[in-house]
Amino acid sequence: MNLAKGGITAPLGFLASGVSCGIKRRGRDVALIFSQRPATVAGTLTTNRLRAPCVAWTEKILRRGTAQAIVANSGNANCCTGSRGIKDTATVARWVGQHLGLSPSKVIVASTGVIGQFLPMDRARKGITLAASRLNRRGSLLAVEAIMTTDTRPKEIALRFSVGGRLVTLGGIAKGSGMVSPCMATMLAFLTTDAKVGRPTLTRALKAAVNETFNAITIDGELSTNDMVILLANGVSEAPVIREGSPAYRDFQAALRAVCQHLAHEIVRDGEGVTRLFRVQVTRAVNFQSARQVARRVADSLLVKTMVAGRDPNWGRIAAAVGASSIPVDPRKLIIRLGHTVVYRKGEPTAVSKKQLLKEVDQAEVQVGIDLGSGRAQAAVLSGDLTDGYVRINAKYTT
Amino acid sequence: MNLAKGGITAPLGFLASGVSCGIKRRGRDVALIFSQRPATVAGTLTTNRLRAPCVAWTEKILRRGTAQAIVANSGNANCCTGSRGIKDTATVARWVGQHLGLSPSKVIVASTGVIGQFLPMDRARKGITLAASRLNRRGSLLAVEAIMTTDTRPKEIALRFSVGGRLVTLGGIAKGSGMVSPCMATMLAFLTTDAKVGRPTLTRALKAAVNETFNAITIDGELSTNDMVILLANGVSEAPVIREGSPAYRDFQAALRAVCQHLAHEIVRDGEGVTRLFRVQVTRAVNFQSARQVARRVADSLLVKTMVAGRDPNWGRIAAAVGASSIPVDPRKLIIRLGHTVVYRKGEPTAVSKKQLLKEVDQAEVQVGIDLGSGRAQAAVLSGDLTDGYVRINAKYTT
Repeated sequence: MNLAKGGITAPLGFLASGVSCGIKRRGRDVALIFSQRPATVAGTLTTNRLRAPCVAWTEKILRRGTAQAIVANSGNANCCTGSRGIKDTATVARWVGQHLGLSPSKVIVASTGVIGQFLPMDRARKGITLAASRLNRRGSLLAVEAIMTTDTRPKEIALRFSVGGRLVTLGGIAKGSGMVSPCMATMLAFLTTDAKVGRPTLTRALKAAVNETFNAITIDGELSTNDMVILLANGVSEAPVIREGSPAYRDFQAALRAVCQHLAHEIVRDGEGVTRLFRVQVTRAVNFQSARQVARRVADSLLVKTMVAGRDPNWGRIAAAVGASSIPVDPRKLIIRLGHTVVYRKGEPTAVSKKQLLKEVDQAEVQVGIDLGSGRAQAAVLSGDLTDGYVRINAKYTT
Repeated sequence: MNLAKGGITAPLGFLASGVSCGIKRRGRDVALIFSQRPATVAGTLTTNRLRAPCVAWTEKILRRGTAQAIVANSGNANCCTGSRGIKDTATVARWVGQHLGLSPSKVIVASTGVIGQFLPMDRARKGITLAASRLNRRGSLLAVEAIMTTDTRPKEIALRFSVGGRLVTLGGIAKGSGMVSPCMATMLAFLTTDAKVGRPTLTRALKAAVNETFNAITIDGELSTNDMVILLANGVSEAPVIREGSPAYRDFQAALRAVCQHLAHEIVRDGEGVTRLFRVQVTRAVNFQSARQVARRVADSLLVKTMVAGRDPNWGRIAAAVGASSIPVDPRKLIIRLGHTVVYRKGEPTAVSKKQLLKEVDQAEVQVGIDLGSGRAQAAVLSGDLTDGYVRINAKYTT
């Protein structure tokens, strides 16, 4: 498996563009991705109960299983916008379809930005027209730029591997938390591949990858109304169909996981105000759900986040967060580690030097280990520290 | 019902003191409260699964229902300290008992401060001896000082009302979030009354009051290992026994609620970094649990907290937080208000001027209304904004 250049336009048969039409105050705000052949599509969508109409729209397409384009705007989430928002989403898909000669039912729609404002449709129309005219084989980076909000750098990657003697490429772009007009930490990721994969297989592979990567990160514990991860597989590589259980499937899944992992990691690294990362690894839980719940409680704890920001090995805060989750914990079985150092075992602090502890928290990525001692399941969550940068970005802004 | 002076020593038959013995770096750190007669006791304790041994100790006393003293130290939570921590808690109670001529089983023990360090018992012993020798009728304020950590001001109150022609007094002190050594946002409140109340009645009254007050506030969503609210009723007023359902019970409960409400409000006002408060009022929920869960999700949302800090009427963040809770929400029935202004109704933003919105968020206590339109239950949670003050207190400290 090798790194390739070109992000989502690295796979064969994909074009992309990113243009500016004034939905955001400045910068590109409409991204368009086009597959020259109808593609199998899989996706995962936000579980927020006030999800945006574009999420419902996209859900319908995912159920049918084929798509050929993705249009995404930044600067406006088109969420909490009632029947007008629903209509606007359909109109956006229709416009894209008209330009590309597609049924609107083949056009995935995504939005990110301020919630509760209507989409400026005149600008959107202009943006779509422009984006359609600019589609090209090297448009990935412009497309990323057009979905960025407070992201400070574009996030893209592509990997190449072989399937039945043919080269297959998988590319991806993503955005993290953003500000534009004051923002939701909306997360979007679009992935493309020229591999040929049936829909059930593609869906299963994507769900597994997302669960281990995008669903295992947190910046501020906020669940956006507009999150989506979309994967298009257009088969243009002419490689044989990838079937579950085959060696090719394992390669495909490894590549998919690597692409998602890279983008997820970049999202946390570039999280609002984040200066340092920490990974919470929960082991020996009764089941995966318990493990993840404990990991999330610790990863979202403001006191653990500020502890990481301050390089302060005050692990009592980790213990308190573990105990605050609704998962039963036996204090005598619990083991807490900072890096490789056990700090708490058998209900008591271990005798560790302050110097050793300071070393463990003075890492670019601090490792927090929580061994529940009660089963065989595990889960990890990657999080960022909490600094005044986050407060500045989200408080010192007035609409 | 009238305000009285003297906090927890305002009721008859209670003495208190607060002294310094070096558990904290500076300031008073051992508080002692003594009832001249054995008192009926009720309490509510943290639900953190890694609770401190003093919480388990106190739970046993609550089960028996009688207590005569409370000893509390700040600067060290004596939590995650294994069998040594359990022994130290018992020793503290024994020492207090020796000084006051009480069985240790009548001594409530509370601690707040850093987690995961053993209690310095030599200092604690000195502190207890000193505190016992300084017990007096006007010691409330010194006792509050001794439980403060990063609190910037003491919190105490007393109310007086009449029961069967006799004056009865209810007093209380509390602490909020603190720093000392890097801190947990431990919350402690001790309440005293000279009313005569049976244990089941006292317990029921306290649970109801705590549920509406202390359990309805949040500063940073962190559940401490050491929280407790304790109410002692010694009957020294010689007023008739307060029985459930009587007018005296209603007066007692109103006073209890007012005392808890005042202290809870003060805790949020003095929360780490808090500059402005906001109250999330959820109405027309299916049941109380749902209402509170939605209220908590919004009250703990970092984006809502920074919105309040920034006086930014970006109510889309409120909508996203409502949708992110696990409670079903019908977007068409949901109504969101900022102050008295409806900002979202029937799935859409209302036509409100920016000026009006800015006025609603420019209040000392911002009112967030969430009408779920699906039942008759309601709940409110009081929260504080998130500022760089919180980050500074909790990150810029190294143990």
